[in-house]
Amino acid sequence: MILRSRVRMFLAAVSSALTLLILAPAGRAQLNNFSKQELTDYTAKNPFERLPDGRPKVPDALIERARELSSEDVWVVLQDKGYNNQYADGFQILHPGKPMVGRAFTVQFMPLRSDVNDIAAEKAKARGVSRLTNQTAIDMLQPGDVLVVDLFGKKLNGTIVGDNLFFYINQATHGGGLVVDGSVRDLNGLSEIDMPAYFRAVDPTPIGNVMLTGINVPIRIGDVTVMPGDLVVGDREGVYFIPPQYVQAVLDKADEVHIHDEWTKKKFAEAKYKSSEIYGSPSDPNLKREYEEYLQKRLGEIRRERAAKEQK
Amino acid sequence: MILRSRVRMFLAAVSSALTLLILAPAGRAQLNNFSKQELTDYTAKNPFERLPDGRPKVPDALIERARELSSEDVWVVLQDKGYNNQYADGFQILHPGKPMVGRAFTVQFMPLRSDVNDIAAEKAKARGVSRLTNQTAIDMLQPGDVLVVDLFGKKLNGTIVGDNLFFYINQATHGGGLVVDGSVRDLNGLSEIDMPAYFRAVDPTPIGNVMLTGINVPIRIGDVTVMPGDLVVGDREGVYFIPPQYVQAVLDKADEVHIHDEWTKKKFAEAKYKSSEIYGSPSDPNLKREYEEYLQKRLGEIRRERAAKEQK
Amino acid sequence: MILRSRVRMFLAAVSSALTLLILAPAGRAQLNNFSKQELTDYTAKNPFERLPDGRPKVPDALIERARELSSEDVWVVLQDKGYNNQYADGFQILHPGKPMVGRAFTVQFMPLRSDVNDIAAEKAKARGVSRLTNQTAIDMLQPGDVLVVDLFGKKLNGTIVGDNLFFYINQATHGGGLVVDGSVRDLNGLSEIDMPAYFRAVDPTPIGNVMLTGINVPIRIGDVTVMPGDLVVGDREGVYFIPPQYVQAVLDKADEVHIHDEWTKKKFAEAKYKSSEIYGSPSDPNLKREYEEYLQKRLGEIRRERAAKEQK
Amino acid sequence: MILRSRVRMFLAAVSSALTLLILAPAGRAQLNNFSKQELTDYTAKNPFERLPDGRPKVPDALIERARELSSEDVWVVLQDKGYNNQYADGFQILHPGKPMVGRAFTVQFMPLRSDVNDIAAEKAKARGVSRLTNQTAIDMLQPGDVLVVDLFGKKLNGTIVGDNLFFYINQATHGGGLVVDGSVRDLNGLSEIDMPAYFRAVDPTPIGNVMLTGINVPIRIGDVTVMPGDLVVGDREGVYFIPPQYVQAVLDKADEVHIHDEWTKKKFAEAKYKSSEIYGSPSDPNLKREYEEYLQKRLGEIRRERAAKEQK
Amino acid sequence: MILRSRVRMFLAAVSSALTLLILAPAGRAQLNNFSKQELTDYTAKNPFERLPDGRPKVPDALIERARELSSEDVWVVLQDKGYNNQYADGFQILHPGKPMVGRAFTVQFMPLRSDVNDIAAEKAKARGVSRLTNQTAIDMLQPGDVLVVDLFGKKLNGTIVGDNLFFYINQATHGGGLVVDGSVRDLNGLSEIDMPAYFRAVDPTPIGNVMLTGINVPIRIGDVTVMPGDLVVGDREGVYFIPPQYVQAVLDKADEVHIHDEWTKKKFAEAKYKSSEIYGSPSDPNLKREYEEYLQKRLGEIRRERAAKEQK
Amino acid sequence: MILRSRVRMFLAAVSSALTLLILAPAGRAQLNNFSKQELTDYTAKNPFERLPDGRPKVPDALIERARELSSEDVWVVLQDKGYNNQYADGFQILHPGKPMVGRAFTVQFMPLRSDVNDIAAEKAKARGVSRLTNQTAIDMLQPGDVLVVDLFGKKLNGTIVGDNLFFYINQATHGGGLVVDGSVRDLNGLSEIDMPAYFRAVDPTPIGNVMLTGINVPIRIGDVTVMPGDLVVGDREGVYFIPPQYVQAVLDKADEVHIHDEWTKKKFAEAKYKSSEIYGSPSDPNLKREYEEYLQKRLGEIRRERAAKEQK
Repeated sequence: MILRSRVRMFLAAVSSALTLLILAPAGRAQLNNFSKQELTDYTAKNPFERLPDGRPKVPDALIERARELSSEDVWVVLQDKGYNNQYADGFQILHPGKPMVGRAFTVQFMPLRSDVNDIAAEKAKARGVSRLTNQTAIDMLQPGDVLVVDLFGKKLNGTIVGDNLFFYINQATHGGGLVVDGSVRDLNGLSEIDMPAYFRAVDPTPIGNVMLTGINVPIRIGDVTVMPGDLVVGDREGVYFIPPQYVQAVLDKADEVHIHDEWTKKKFAEAKYKSSEIYGSPSDPNLKREYEEYLQKRLGEIRRERAAKEQK
Repeated sequence: MILRSRVRMFLAAVSSALTLLILAPAGRAQLNNFSKQELTDYTAKNPFERLPDGRPKVPDALIERARELSSEDVWVVLQDKGYNNQYADGFQILHPGKPMVGRAFTVQFMPLRSDVNDIAAEKAKARGVSRLTNQTAIDMLQPGDVLVVDLFGKKLNGTIVGDNLFFYINQATHGGGLVVDGSVRDLNGLSEIDMPAYFRAVDPTPIGNVMLTGINVPIRIGDVTVMPGDLVVGDREGVYFIPPQYVQAVLDKADEVHIHDEWTKKKFAEAKYKSSEIYGSPSDPNLKREYEEYLQKRLGEIRRERAAKEQK
Repeated sequence: MILRSRVRMFLAAVSSALTLLILAPAGRAQLNNFSKQELTDYTAKNPFERLPDGRPKVPDALIERARELSSEDVWVVLQDKGYNNQYADGFQILHPGKPMVGRAFTVQFMPLRSDVNDIAAEKAKARGVSRLTNQTAIDMLQPGDVLVVDLFGKKLNGTIVGDNLFFYINQATHGGGLVVDGSVRDLNGLSEIDMPAYFRAVDPTPIGNVMLTGINVPIRIGDVTVMPGDLVVGDREGVYFIPPQYVQAVLDKADEVHIHDEWTKKKFAEAKYKSSEIYGSPSDPNLKREYEEYLQKRLGEIRRERAAKEQK
Repeated sequence: MILRSRVRMFLAAVSSALTLLILAPAGRAQLNNFSKQELTDYTAKNPFERLPDGRPKVPDALIERARELSSEDVWVVLQDKGYNNQYADGFQILHPGKPMVGRAFTVQFMPLRSDVNDIAAEKAKARGVSRLTNQTAIDMLQPGDVLVVDLFGKKLNGTIVGDNLFFYINQATHGGGLVVDGSVRDLNGLSEIDMPAYFRAVDPTPIGNVMLTGINVPIRIGDVTVMPGDLVVGDREGVYFIPPQYVQAVLDKADEVHIHDEWTKKKFAEAKYKSSEIYGSPSDPNLKREYEEYLQKRLGEIRRERAAKEQK
Repeated sequence: MILRSRVRMFLAAVSSALTLLILAPAGRAQLNNFSKQELTDYTAKNPFERLPDGRPKVPDALIERARELSSEDVWVVLQDKGYNNQYADGFQILHPGKPMVGRAFTVQFMPLRSDVNDIAAEKAKARGVSRLTNQTAIDMLQPGDVLVVDLFGKKLNGTIVGDNLFFYINQATHGGGLVVDGSVRDLNGLSEIDMPAYFRAVDPTPIGNVMLTGINVPIRIGDVTVMPGDLVVGDREGVYFIPPQYVQAVLDKADEVHIHDEWTKKKFAEAKYKSSEIYGSPSDPNLKREYEEYLQKRLGEIRRERAAKEQK
Repeated sequence: MILRSRVRMFLAAVSSALTLLILAPAGRAQLNNFSKQELTDYTAKNPFERLPDGRPKVPDALIERARELSSEDVWVVLQDKGYNNQYADGFQILHPGKPMVGRAFTVQFMPLRSDVNDIAAEKAKARGVSRLTNQTAIDMLQPGDVLVVDLFGKKLNGTIVGDNLFFYINQATHGGGLVVDGSVRDLNGLSEIDMPAYFRAVDPTPIGNVMLTGINVPIRIGDVTVMPGDLVVGDREGVYFIPPQYVQAVLDKADEVHIHDEWTKKKFAEAKYKSSEIYGSPSDPNLKREYEEYLQKRLGEIRRERAAKEQK
C-alpha cells in the first residue's frame, strides 16, 4: 500500500537501496546462472511436457486433483522413495483452510553488496534490460505457478510483496500462491485476497538491502532443495515440494489413503471395535475382506467420477 | 491419513521402528510400573468412586459443571491450597473456543533403546499381549477421559495420533480431548473433528523412535506432575490438572466468581463508578451490601436451576 | 474472573504482594516523575489542543479517519521524517481484524523492591492517596485513550487486567484499546469484549511482584519510546505510535496511498499489463496521466464525502 | 578503536545519529528526572554516608570484604528479607574468575525519537551543557563505582563502550566494573584490560539510535530495579544489586557460611560420614557441638585478622 | 555455600518447600518404582558383574581405558548397532578439557504436588526413613559412579547441588562426575573442585518445589533413555550413555580409530598427499598395505602396553 | 576420528548417504555454476593479481598486516563505503585469542535430493571425476586460504570436518582457518590443532544427507554474500569478509586507529583528563596539536619499521 516511486527515492538516499539484478532471458546476467539446458538436464526425470522456460509442466488435471492432498499423503510416498528433505514448515499461513497447489517458480535473493550488484546491473543493461526490481521475476509468472522465494528468513526489508503485487500474482497465477522464506507487508490487504501464502514474518518496510541473484534456479527453503517445476503442495501444516516424477504416484496412493480413512472412520463410528481391530489394517479376515471390497468399489467410483468430470 | 500397516513395514526396515511396550493389565510389563494398588494409595484423598482401573472418578455431573471453568477460576482455589504446579501452557490449541474437561488418562513414552524395548516385548509376550502399539493405550480409553501423553516435546516422529485415531478417541471418550507434550499429524483432518486438543507441534511423520513406558502412571507435562484421574480443564490459555479432592471447591468458588464478574460488569455498565469503587470489592458499605444480596440471590437461583436440571 | 479482595489477602501473605505506587495527581509521589509542565515541554510540537492532564489531544475526527490506516501507511511518512523507532510488533492480538486507534495513556511498572515501594507508599499517603493498585491508573482513563503499559515482558504476575477491568477500560475509553508489554488473564472473558488488545502472553495469575512507577511518563514498548498522547495505531501486524505533529501528514498521505492501491488493482484486474508497467508508478506517460487524473478525482470525492460527514 | 569524530560525521549523515541528552547537574534537563532530594528520600534506609551526588556510600572497607561474596551468600540474606528481585544473569562475562564489587552508578538510554531529543538538547544548552554524548555520564564516575547501564538489550548500536572508554572507566573507578543490558565493542581490546564486565552481546558498531534519558535514576536490569548506590556484586554466575541497608548483614552472614563450608568440606574430606550426617547441619549432638565450637573459634580469628588489617 | 537448616526453614515458610521423597532401599516407597529384580531383568544383556544395588558394574579397567574416548568413538559403534538415542548435548561444561567416565547412578525429580508427596512421606516413615532430602540419593553413591539427574531442565530451584555436596560427590565417587538436566549453584566453589560436571544452568537458589520420585530407575536426559549402570562418557561436546554390553566393542573400535587418526595425520604431515589419497582409506594399494601393517603393529604395541600396565 | 570407509557403508545402508557432487575443474558439473570468467567479471574491482583458479589474490604481506585487525577496524572503513552486510557473528570460536586471516575459498552444500544428485554424479563421471566427497573441495585449498562453507546451519550431519581433515586443512592452508555455517566434529581433537575455526555447533555424526553444490561460487554466511577471494578476518567477536578492493584502505585506516587508541590510553593513564576532553578527539587546541604530531611521528615509525621488515 505504498507509492513505490517515492519509496525508491528514499531508499536510494539512505543506502538500503532496492537494487535488483535482472534475469536476462536469453543470456547469463544473473549471479546464480542456471540455463534452460541445465534446468532440463537436472530435471530429466520429469515425465510431463515442459513450460516454454524449461520447467516441468505438471498437467493442470493433476494440479486439480492435488488440491485434496495433505502433507501426510505426500510423506507416505516420498519417504518410501527415499526423499526425506522435501518438506518445510514453521510458516505463518495466510488462509489456513485453503489448500495451495502449483508449479514452483523459484527466485533467490542474497544480501546486497554493491560491487557485485553494480557489475550485474551493467551486464543486464548490456542486454537491454533497464529496470531492476523484484517485479522482473513477478512479471514472468504463469497460470498455475506458485512463487517460491529464498529471502534467507529476512524480516526487516525482506518483504517480497505487499498487497498490490500480491493482487497481481493472484491474477497472473490464477490463485497459485506464495511461499517465502522471508516476509510480506500489508497483511490487512493480503488477508482480503483469496490466494494462499506461507511466510516467516510480516513487516511494514519494503524490500531492500538485498540483490536478486537467480530466477528459476535451484533454491533452498528451510531444509528443502526446491527445483523449478516441483509441485508445491501446502496445507494447514506446511509445504511439500514434490519432484514431478512422483506426482502421479502420490495422487494414486492418496486415493487409497482417503478411502482407507473413510472406511476406518465409518467402522469407528459404529462403535463396535477397538481401534486396533480396525486400524492400521483389520485383524479379522472378514473385516479385511470387507475393506478390500470397499477399497475396490470406491476406487472404481472415484475413477469413473474423475473420468466423467474430465470429459466435460 | 495413512495406511499404518504400510508405514510400519517401512519403519521396521529403516530402524526408526515403531516398537511399543504393552501394558499388561494384570501384571507388570511396563518399564514404569504403577499398580492399581499404588494408584489407589497415591490418590487416597480422592473423595469420589473409582473407575475399574483404579483411577478416581470425578462424577459426570461435576464434569458437566466444569465446562464453565476458566484457568483463573481454578488458579484462585489451587494457589490457596498451596498447589502452584498444576498448570501447563504453550500449546497449540485445536479449537480455541471449545472447553476441554475430563478425567486424565495418562501415557508415557521415552526415547527408544532396543535392549530395554526387547525385554519389555518379551515380558509382554509372556503375558499373551502380542501387538505392541500406541493403540494399546488408546483402546483402553473410557467415556469422560482426556488422553494426556508425555512425548517429551518430540516433533518429528512424536505424533501421538493422526485423524483416524483422533476420530476414534473422540468416539471412545465422548469428545473428551487430548493433551500431548509432543505432536499430532493430519491437522487438516483433525480440524474437522469437534474434540478439543492441545499439542506442541504438528508433523507429517508417524510416531516412531520411541517406546511406550507407562499407562496411567504419574507423568510430567511441562511443570505439572499429572496423576491418573486428575480433572483436566483446558481453556483458551492452557490446561489445569485438578486433583480430585479439590474439584468441588473449585466449582463452588467458581459460582461465586462468576456472580461477582456478572455484578461487577453490570455496575461498570452503568458507567457511574470508577473501577476501584466496585472492584475487587466495593468500598461503599451500601454497594457492599447490594453485592452481598445479589450474590446470595444468584447463588440461590443457580443452585435451584442446577437441582432442577439434575432431576430431569 | 476473580475476587480481588480475596486475592490480595493471599498475596499479602505470601510476599508476592500486589503493592502499587499511587500517582498523586497534584504532586510528585511516583518514582518516575514527569510533571504536566514537563509533558507539555517535551511534546511542544503538538499542533492540537491538550487534555486536562497535559497530553496532546489528537482530535476525534482524525482518530476516526485513522481507523483506515495500516502499518505501511504510517511507515511511509515516519521513515521520511527520520522516525524509525515508532513501531512495535511480536504481540498476540485479541481481535486481529479490528483496528485499534487512540491516544496513548502510558503506565510503567518495575520489579518490586519493598524499600523503594514503602517510601513511595508513605509519600502517597502524605498526599491523601490511600489505595494502592493498578486501578489508580485505569481509573484515570478518558474516552479515546489506548492504555499502553510497560510490564517489561513479564508473563507470570505480569497480567495488567482480567476481564472485569478490561470491561471497565472498554467502557471508559469507548473501545479504545490496550497495549501491554506483559500479559493479560481471563482470555476467555476478554475474547467476548469487543475492544482491541495487544499483549505478549496470557497467564492465570493476577498482577504482582511489581510496583507502579509512572503514569503518563515516557515509556519503552519494544524498541519504541512512547510519549503520552501519541496516536496509537494497531493493525494485524503490530502497533505504531505516531507523534501528534505527524498525524495529519500520515492521514493525508494515506488518502493518496489508498487511491493508488485502488487504481493499481483496478489496472491489474484488467489483466492487460505486466506489474512493472503499472506499479510503483506507470511507465507509459498516458497511464501516468490517467493515474494523475484518477488521483485528483478521487481525492476530491473523498474530501467532499468527509466534509459532508463532518457537517452532520 | 575508532576515531569518534569520524564516526559521528557518518552517523549524522545516515540518520542513526548518536545524539544524547545531557545531565544538567544542577537542574532538570533529563527526560527521566530524579533529583538529589528524591534520591535521598528513596534511599532513606541507607545507614552509611552519602557521595556528593546523593548516592549512598557503602564504605570502602565493606567493598573490600565483599570481594569474597558469591551470589549464594547474597541470596541467603536477601530472600530472608523478602527481596527476590535483586539478581540478574544471562550475561557474557569478560573475566569469569574476577569478582566485581562496587557502588551502582546508573545510566538509562531509550530508543531515539528526535522530537523529544531536540527539546532535551535545547534544555541542556540553556544550562550551558554543549556536548551531548554518553561520555557525559562516564565523566562523572568515581572510584569504587560500577557503571550500570540500561540499553534495553540492544546489540546493534547498543555498545556502551569500546576499549578506549573501557580503559577510562577502569582508571576512573579504580577497576570498579561495568554491567550493561546491551553490548560492548572492541572485545579484543577489552579482554586486555583487567576490569570486570557483564554484557549481553558484542558488536562492531558504535552506540547510536538511542538517547540518554537518565543518570543515577532508578533503572531496570533484567528483573531488578537498581537504585543508585546499590552494592553491585558479580561472580561467575551473575550480578546481585544489594540495597545498602543489607550490606552489613550479608557480609556477616557470609562469614558464617564460609566457615560452615570450610568445616563441612573438612569433615567430608575425612571420608567417614554420609553427607546427611554433616550437611546442612550435623545430626549427631557431638558433631553439632564440634561445629559450634569451630564456628566461634574461626569467627574470632577472622574478626581479629580483619581488625588487625584495618589498623594498619 | 549456605546453611541448609536455615534455608529449609525459610522454604517451609514460603511454600516452595524442599520436600523430597525417600528411597526405601528394601521396599517400594518411591513414586517411580523399579525394583532390583526389574533392574536386573531390563539390563539382562549386561556381560559384567553387578553392584550390590543391582546395577551392571562395568569393570574399573574398562572405565580407565574409556578416559581416552571421544563422542565420535562412541558414535561409530552405537549407530552401527542401531542405537541413535544415546547422546545428549547442550550442557554447560564445568571443566571442558577433563574427560568424564563412570557408571550411571540415576535420580529422578518431578514437580512438587503435596498430596502425592505426603503419601510418599508416610510410606517412607513406615519403613523407618525419617529424613527426606536429595542427600538420600547422594549418600548412596559409590566409587566410579556418575550422578545422572533428571530435573526436567529446571533452573530456579532446580539446583541439584552447591559446592559442599559437589565436594562430597567428588569424594564418594572418586571424581566420577555429574550430569544434570537442571542446574547447579555455587559456580565459584564448583570451579575449584576437580570433578567433571555437565549442567543446563546455574542459579543461586537451592533446590525446591520438586519431589524425588526415583533412584536408579530409567530416566530421560534430553533424547536419551538412561539406564542405571550405563557407562557415562563426557567430552568437550556432550555426554554418551553406553549400554554395558557395548562397552568392550566401543573400546576395541576406538583403538583402531585412534591408530587410524595417528597414521592419517602422520601422512598428512608429510605434505605429499591430497587428503583423498589418504583419508577415509588410502586409494593406493601400497599405502593401503602400509596402513594395514601400521595398524597391526600399533595394535600389538597398545595391547602389550596395556597388559604390562595391568600386571603391575 | 573415524574410519570414513566404514562410515560411508553405514550411511549408504540407511539412506542418509553421504553423496557429494564433484567439481569438474574444467567444466560445468556442479549445480551452482560459476565459471572462472564469471568469477573474474564479478570481482573486476580486485586491484591485485589472481590465483590460478581466478580468485583475487590479496598479497601475503597484506595478509600479514591484517593479523592486527579487529572487527571495529574493518567496520569503520566498510560502513563508510556503504558496505553494511559484510560481518557475520554468533559462531563458536575454537581459539578465541587467535586471529584468523586469509583468502576466502567458498563451498556450498544443499539438502540432498537424489534425483538432482544422480544427474550431477553422471555429469561428473562423464568428466572423469570418480570420487564424490567433500574432500574434493578440501583437496583444492591453497596456502593462505580460509575455507568458508555454507552448510545452512545444519548441526546433525552438518559436520564439515573432524580432526583428521582439520589437520589436513591446517597443513594445506598454512594455518589459514575455517568458517562454517554448520558444524564440526571431534572437538577434542580440533582443540589441539592451532588453526582458527568458527562454527555454529558440534556434533559426533559425520557429514551426510547433503549434496555439494558449488566450489568458489558466491555463497551466503549469515547476512553476508561472500565472494571467492574476499579477505576473511576473524577476531574474538566474529568474521568480516572484506572485498579485495578495500583491503589497503582498511589497513591504512587501522594504523591511524591504533595510534589514536595508543595516544588516548596514554592520556587517560595520566589521569588528568575527563574522557570527553580527549576522546573521540581532543577539545583543547593544544591537545589536538599534540595528538596530530604524535600521529605523524608514529605513522612514520610504523612505516619505516614495516619497510625495514619487508626489505629483509
